[in-house]
Amino acid sequence: MSTIKVGIVGYGNIGRGVEAALNQNPDMELVAVFTRRAPETLQIHNATAKVEHMDALESYKGKIDVMILCGGSATDLPVQGPEIARHFNTIDSFDTHARIPEYFTNVNEVATEANTTSVISVGWDPGLFSMIRMMSGAILPVGEDYTFWGKGVSQGHSDAIRRVKGVKNGIQYTIPMNEAVESVRNGENPELATRDKHLRECFVVAEDGADLAEIENTIKTMPNYFSDYNTIVNFISEEELRRDHAKMPHGGFVFRSGATGFEEESKQIIEFSLKLDSNPQFTANVLVAYARAAVRMNKEGMKGAKSVFDVPLSYLSPKTSMELMTELL
Amino acid sequence: MSTIKVGIVGYGNIGRGVEAALNQNPDMELVAVFTRRAPETLQIHNATAKVEHMDALESYKGKIDVMILCGGSATDLPVQGPEIARHFNTIDSFDTHARIPEYFTNVNEVATEANTTSVISVGWDPGLFSMIRMMSGAILPVGEDYTFWGKGVSQGHSDAIRRVKGVKNGIQYTIPMNEAVESVRNGENPELATRDKHLRECFVVAEDGADLAEIENTIKTMPNYFSDYNTIVNFISEEELRRDHAKMPHGGFVFRSGATGFEEESKQIIEFSLKLDSNPQFTANVLVAYARAAVRMNKEGMKGAKSVFDVPLSYLSPKTSMELMTELL
Repeated sequence: MSTIKVGIVGYGNIGRGVEAALNQNPDMELVAVFTRRAPETLQIHNATAKVEHMDALESYKGKIDVMILCGGSATDLPVQGPEIARHFNTIDSFDTHARIPEYFTNVNEVATEANTTSVISVGWDPGLFSMIRMMSGAILPVGEDYTFWGKGVSQGHSDAIRRVKGVKNGIQYTIPMNEAVESVRNGENPELATRDKHLRECFVVAEDGADLAEIENTIKTMPNYFSDYNTIVNFISEEELRRDHAKMPHGGFVFRSGATGFEEESKQIIEFSLKLDSNPQFTANVLVAYARAAVRMNKEGMKGAKSVFDVPLSYLSPKTSMELMTELL
Repeated sequence: MSTIKVGIVGYGNIGRGVEAALNQNPDMELVAVFTRRAPETLQIHNATAKVEHMDALESYKGKIDVMILCGGSATDLPVQGPEIARHFNTIDSFDTHARIPEYFTNVNEVATEANTTSVISVGWDPGLFSMIRMMSGAILPVGEDYTFWGKGVSQGHSDAIRRVKGVKNGIQYTIPMNEAVESVRNGENPELATRDKHLRECFVVAEDGADLAEIENTIKTMPNYFSDYNTIVNFISEEELRRDHAKMPHGGFVFRSGATGFEEESKQIIEFSLKLDSNPQFTANVLVAYARAAVRMNKEGMKGAKSVFDVPLSYLSPKTSMELMTELL
């Protein structure tokens, strides 16, 4: 069987994760990594794959079955998504929730015209969490959704800390509140304020001579980011930050707490959770499974932009339908 | 918008659950319940739907979009599945794992020829649990699967108890072992013997004058059913059985405990769990969501037998793709 030929566009944390994920999937082969940096400065693990400048991307048309776009949602993907869909099947993890319909429309227009297939907003949220919410809501139409994130690093909140005067460096963990999670798990359908659902814990490296009390107060009262939460601020050294906070763990919980029967007599609780040592690596593994699906969908005539809701689960696997049915149903 | 017209074949616990589930889904309409009993003896909730004898089923061709088969896997479905697929789209919860490929083949042959769509083995295991195992394995190819069932009533084990000499009535609960679940949740990838994963608890009503010690011993040493497990046997009165054990709760946990990255440096844990007050009602709600999907798949030309792996998740929902993307992605 010939392998699925893959390109990685962007070699940050997720791009590196995709390279490692491809290494776990023998039916897939990394052909090239595309970067905006000088290609010769990039060290990749794979000994046979090429490192190319982004400008060389189009020259791989016909040599690569699917491009996995590993850029950011703020500025990279809105441009790269439609551009690359003109020539290749693509997968991305576009995660700016509010702009997903607009992004979908832009990619869909190009991909439909070019006969390519692009699965957008792949990962775990958006992605797996969305799938569970969608499926659970269809199964239990009478019920409530709950999502908790963490414990994990929020890049947005970490960036917000770092912009505070007197802060040299810092990281923020979003922590789900145990009491709230347990209450949902017990079917109590609680009404939860923002403050009841998550706690925010910050580890801050201050500049020499900075006013720590003022930093702490500025963080805790910051609108949108912290003021609606209970926030803990810890001051640590740069060395402690490097030593204890270099990993990027994350995770979370999705619940559907519903009722069935006439008179809604029975409580039914669906729970899905992730506990991830590495958020970017897990996201990368999801991207790779969907890259397999995109290639197959394209071969079978399912063209244009797609979301995770449109992909039959069997397309994620290298196994045949009969193997899946025999081994896993 | 016109509603999806539904027939229920068989009016036991699951059939009644399907009727209640349809009541929660305004885009669907119950047209008729088909039974082997004398129709006039059957009392259903729905005031406008008909109750018909099974023999009248074919006369509803063109008037019903999908039949939800609520019979048992041992004798009903192997016959009804292929028979009814000749005239209608169907959904069933065929759950004899070992015979699924054979059943699929039989239904597929008929449905393909008849241009109908049949989604087989729908429910939660097989069904949702299978989907999570399949999807999680594709995302984390390096890892271990764990499934725990319960706490819930096992019909097979309850039947086995009732066949023991001196036993008048009884029920058996399968209980997952907390220590094992916690060990898996903590990423310890334990090797678990049968006895380490589940405990079996029996509530037994003995005949007057029966030898209780002998009953207990017969149950605990019963091969296949109990001898590989730690089993608790409680003797109770018929009244206690009726009062405390009339519900049919169930549930369970599916885990994928995997590793990602070069050197598999990061642990990644996916967990899915169900806590169900009523096993048949929940199964019924899943069947109804897949009934919606079957009708749409059939309209779009996806004919023949299908498993849950073949169905795009969006087809389970009455919402449009754009609504799903805006509200749930």
